[in-house]
Amino acid sequence: MTTAETRAGALPELADVPARDLRVAVLGVGMMGADHVSRIYSRISGAQVVAVSDAFAEKAEQVAAEVPGCRVIDDPLAAITDDDVDAVLIATPGRFHEEQVLACIEHGKPVLCEKPLTMDAASSLGIVRAEDAYTARTGRRLVTVGFMRRFDPEYAELKALIDAGGLGEPLLVHCAHRNAAVPPHFTSEMMINDSVVHEVDVTRFLLDEEIAAVTVLRPRPTRHAVTGQSDPLLVLFETTGGRMVDVECFVSTGVGYEVRTEVVGEDGSALIGLDSGLVRTSGDPSGAARSSGIAPDFRQRFGRAYDIELQRWVDAARRGEVDGPGAWDGYAAQAVCAAGVEALRSGRRTEVGMEAR
Amino acid sequence: MTTAETRAGALPELADVPARDLRVAVLGVGMMGADHVSRIYSRISGAQVVAVSDAFAEKAEQVAAEVPGCRVIDDPLAAITDDDVDAVLIATPGRFHEEQVLACIEHGKPVLCEKPLTMDAASSLGIVRAEDAYTARTGRRLVTVGFMRRFDPEYAELKALIDAGGLGEPLLVHCAHRNAAVPPHFTSEMMINDSVVHEVDVTRFLLDEEIAAVTVLRPRPTRHAVTGQSDPLLVLFETTGGRMVDVECFVSTGVGYEVRTEVVGEDGSALIGLDSGLVRTSGDPSGAARSSGIAPDFRQRFGRAYDIELQRWVDAARRGEVDGPGAWDGYAAQAVCAAGVEALRSGRRTEVGMEAR
Amino acid sequence: MTTAETRAGALPELADVPARDLRVAVLGVGMMGADHVSRIYSRISGAQVVAVSDAFAEKAEQVAAEVPGCRVIDDPLAAITDDDVDAVLIATPGRFHEEQVLACIEHGKPVLCEKPLTMDAASSLGIVRAEDAYTARTGRRLVTVGFMRRFDPEYAELKALIDAGGLGEPLLVHCAHRNAAVPPHFTSEMMINDSVVHEVDVTRFLLDEEIAAVTVLRPRPTRHAVTGQSDPLLVLFETTGGRMVDVECFVSTGVGYEVRTEVVGEDGSALIGLDSGLVRTSGDPSGAARSSGIAPDFRQRFGRAYDIELQRWVDAARRGEVDGPGAWDGYAAQAVCAAGVEALRSGRRTEVGMEAR
Amino acid sequence: MTTAETRAGALPELADVPARDLRVAVLGVGMMGADHVSRIYSRISGAQVVAVSDAFAEKAEQVAAEVPGCRVIDDPLAAITDDDVDAVLIATPGRFHEEQVLACIEHGKPVLCEKPLTMDAASSLGIVRAEDAYTARTGRRLVTVGFMRRFDPEYAELKALIDAGGLGEPLLVHCAHRNAAVPPHFTSEMMINDSVVHEVDVTRFLLDEEIAAVTVLRPRPTRHAVTGQSDPLLVLFETTGGRMVDVECFVSTGVGYEVRTEVVGEDGSALIGLDSGLVRTSGDPSGAARSSGIAPDFRQRFGRAYDIELQRWVDAARRGEVDGPGAWDGYAAQAVCAAGVEALRSGRRTEVGMEAR
Repeated sequence: MTTAETRAGALPELADVPARDLRVAVLGVGMMGADHVSRIYSRISGAQVVAVSDAFAEKAEQVAAEVPGCRVIDDPLAAITDDDVDAVLIATPGRFHEEQVLACIEHGKPVLCEKPLTMDAASSLGIVRAEDAYTARTGRRLVTVGFMRRFDPEYAELKALIDAGGLGEPLLVHCAHRNAAVPPHFTSEMMINDSVVHEVDVTRFLLDEEIAAVTVLRPRPTRHAVTGQSDPLLVLFETTGGRMVDVECFVSTGVGYEVRTEVVGEDGSALIGLDSGLVRTSGDPSGAARSSGIAPDFRQRFGRAYDIELQRWVDAARRGEVDGPGAWDGYAAQAVCAAGVEALRSGRRTEVGMEAR
Repeated sequence: MTTAETRAGALPELADVPARDLRVAVLGVGMMGADHVSRIYSRISGAQVVAVSDAFAEKAEQVAAEVPGCRVIDDPLAAITDDDVDAVLIATPGRFHEEQVLACIEHGKPVLCEKPLTMDAASSLGIVRAEDAYTARTGRRLVTVGFMRRFDPEYAELKALIDAGGLGEPLLVHCAHRNAAVPPHFTSEMMINDSVVHEVDVTRFLLDEEIAAVTVLRPRPTRHAVTGQSDPLLVLFETTGGRMVDVECFVSTGVGYEVRTEVVGEDGSALIGLDSGLVRTSGDPSGAARSSGIAPDFRQRFGRAYDIELQRWVDAARRGEVDGPGAWDGYAAQAVCAAGVEALRSGRRTEVGMEAR
Repeated sequence: MTTAETRAGALPELADVPARDLRVAVLGVGMMGADHVSRIYSRISGAQVVAVSDAFAEKAEQVAAEVPGCRVIDDPLAAITDDDVDAVLIATPGRFHEEQVLACIEHGKPVLCEKPLTMDAASSLGIVRAEDAYTARTGRRLVTVGFMRRFDPEYAELKALIDAGGLGEPLLVHCAHRNAAVPPHFTSEMMINDSVVHEVDVTRFLLDEEIAAVTVLRPRPTRHAVTGQSDPLLVLFETTGGRMVDVECFVSTGVGYEVRTEVVGEDGSALIGLDSGLVRTSGDPSGAARSSGIAPDFRQRFGRAYDIELQRWVDAARRGEVDGPGAWDGYAAQAVCAAGVEALRSGRRTEVGMEAR
Repeated sequence: MTTAETRAGALPELADVPARDLRVAVLGVGMMGADHVSRIYSRISGAQVVAVSDAFAEKAEQVAAEVPGCRVIDDPLAAITDDDVDAVLIATPGRFHEEQVLACIEHGKPVLCEKPLTMDAASSLGIVRAEDAYTARTGRRLVTVGFMRRFDPEYAELKALIDAGGLGEPLLVHCAHRNAAVPPHFTSEMMINDSVVHEVDVTRFLLDEEIAAVTVLRPRPTRHAVTGQSDPLLVLFETTGGRMVDVECFVSTGVGYEVRTEVVGEDGSALIGLDSGLVRTSGDPSGAARSSGIAPDFRQRFGRAYDIELQRWVDAARRGEVDGPGAWDGYAAQAVCAAGVEALRSGRRTEVGMEAR
């Protein structure tokens, strides 16, 4: 995973970015929106949440109170047009997306919209056309849709492997998308719109072509299915290039959250989602093997650890605290290494000399 | 790994942190230091690099030029005392650490010092004592040492498992620390001081006790060893509680970077470092199993993807660009899902209706 | 795998079997048939090949010459009726099976017939009816069809897990069946009849119900496909109980031989074929895990090693040879253990005292 | 594992073996001995147990009663010299081995002696010398010691990989040997003599050189250890060529039976014992990977299944039964394949036409 991240999902280094932080308004601070506020505040460099908006004013107040410099703007459209807002993150219910995204385009504000873009294809196409018009005028694009799997290090590594020709031409994709449980109102249609939609985007992302046809099969339902609903579903995609994708969508497994994707190509296959990094099948019959990569050096293996270390050091320093190994740990390591070097020289067991703490 | 991160290595959420960014001086901008500058600039929330210092002025100028608002301060001690510097990150060669860390303590500046803390145990103990005196006066601590493995999600998960009693009392630890290659001046002593030092800290971190004795054995050296040096080494630690640790340190494997740690306890064992998350051995003979965790839901599985998504969105927005799936991707997904819902209802293969792009 | 073998695929122990060896005629000694002759001769207890028959007389002579006591009978029907033949193994081309199996039934000889039983369903049904009539008269059955996967330890373990209710009710099965390459005459129809036929039997074996409908989809073919043929295929089965099975059949992967089966049930799933034993997904969201079993003791872990050890000892003894660790190895082990016990007592490194060989 | 078996641990095919079965006497029919009787009777080709002997006459009678043609000979030395006995398998307590093996040598009978060969190095050396004298006279060897791991397919694959130079020169070996539990009389010395003795032989087998020195360390004992005993132990071997081996021996893990061996060489490493076949680490830093082999074709993947299939067919036929898929299964497969071929041609879902059973 570390390897994947390095090879394919790396963050930009010292990019050409203006010094001032991006001032973000977050619309909708339910579970996803509140998570994003927290994320921007505590983990994202170069951005601040300056405004939040939510139909439940109390929830908005509560979230804003935890972020220095963040205020509540009741009307989401007012938040979009506010002069102190550079960019907008939309996490409101899907039925509000169309109006809000269009407002962002109208006012030239970059927008990250959680899926779905809108509630149907026609209105989504309207947004495409509106942004195209804006781009024609300005040369800039504004809309990003929250298909986050494209940023997952494993998916990014799989995409990079395909693009590098490592699997030859992809022919088939096998997907599984499993949730432990869903709320009692979750219908089979929602399985398509809320769950399988991710495999729709993954298919388009990995194969770089459109989906031309869909078939949905209903196997015998689990006894844990929402009453009257078909769960699991077996969904088939055919792409414009004749490739096929099968998707098991199963939202009442009772177990955990499993998302698996295997791409089968002319020259090998690759599987992600077994929580063990990308597993590649390759070779010829005399040396066929299943393999997973090893990081080339410590920057790849421990790059994530360095990020977390520094973030925690910064956070602690801002609080006037220390959060990590301290001077005593540095001293103890020196004392043990000194004994180690002595042991190396003498070939003998060497006791560590250490002061009492 | 995602699971690990969530369970054990999570970043603080909406912590009680002052609004102003932490202003950091980075001393030493060789490979590690420059990496840290880049990291703070592009991935760390709430901090800015405001000053860099390096014995090679040209290198310092070059790094500073890439970070808005960052200046060069030639004298590292001047950087430490500068009023615009809140905290210091030391990545200079080890022989300068003692003086620089002591200066940080004297001026009450939080400091993250790359290992080693100093060049020998006595001077490290001097720092411990100096910080203790400062803490006695102020109630605050200042020194963090850069043992980054403690922040690695796998190590954090292993530590959490031990602390939760999941392995019973730990008895033995098996470690392997392998590099593909080292520079021609790398001696066996450096294997102890620069490589095995990480296993020293890991041992202390995981077992929560000190190392009492060290033995270093020299197996037959590889033909790829630095001339005259013993590589691999087999190092044994005994802790004050009688636990034992064996460490294979092998720095010329020619392969990749492998760091593996297995803790064997009274009630099971756990292994990290096979690039497949933590693998736990548990159960009784009638149902003994090797297992690895599955994320409970999408926030754990894709938490990292969300972080990367937002960071890239922010970075792109600041550059006036879009970097991710766009409106067309949102439209295409809607069009396919509409066909999917129709296919679900009809039970038939359904073609996707989509406008030409 | 050892665990699997023990739990589910174990051979009978000290069964109630007559003392005299079973005298077997093998019809057809091409690749499969010759393999079976060799197998019976060198690895199977309680049986001898007493006759072989093949359309190529020379091939039959050659095989018979290597097995003491084995003769050639040109006419396969004469071999079936021969008084010295207790049982018949049919490995002739499929078009001869019907007549040969019916002859076995007529003469009351147990028969193991390689798949296909016959060339079409009607003639296979004829054999069912003929055997039923024989069974009605005698109470005995005679026909076994060579679907060998049922005897594979992994499949046997998977079946046992399902039967024990470990997955709850099975709902979906995902299969992949991949060959590196096939001969130039191999058609897509042969992919169904010769390859997918194994998934047909696996489905019926694992789910204990019949297949009610089949769909065959043709994804974009690989450039390595036999000219004009569709490869890979995506085959769907629906069972009489509404369960569904998807099968990727891909016979020109260029890689190796991969056969994978995953059963998804109401209460968990299990996957075989990643060459790492059965991997089970189970638990609830707070502790969901992927796990594989560990042998309870050495008899399971090394049962196969004991079998091979004894077979090689017997074979060597019959040749007047020794094939395995000898007295010197026993001596060396004693000498090292003596030093080990001394080292245990003294706590010191102890040199091994050993005579020169 | 299948791959391993094929590549390295294969049984001899059509070897030059006399037609008559080897007549074996088994001395000692406790757990191991009775297992071996059963194994020879039900799974080994070309051998019969004709005599058993045990200090507990009742146990001997009971075992003999289950094997046609097997009689009890009270005096083990009489069994060795019996004219109807071709070869001897010794599974008596170790203190009887010396006399029994010497008797076998005296009478020119091939003998498979369970470890230990004798109770001390001196008496084992006596056997070496006695067999050497016999060999000098006859050109034949007689003694095999029951170090069965050499026959385990994974160990055989590891040995083959080393011998083929796949790891370069081996430098270090890491071993773990874990039992769930041992009887209450099991001492730390027995851990050396009965458990670690296998790693002694594995070391000598894999590295092809002798062990020159042993060190035994005693980590903090588990609370589950036999009272007063040190468990686990950490045992170190140095070989005559300067290679080193560390062995964790832990006999009260409470979990399962785990035997793991990793060989670290100049050009890569290989690990067995994670129940997922041999895992090899190789490549250079730009493409370092952990990999496991895939069978080249079905004979490797399902070779074991064919063996079990035939053994069960033979056993069932001798009992007048059928034990495996029958004619109906052959018919059902034909009916489904016919529908499959129709579905392939039509591109449509095709119902399977099948008679009622």
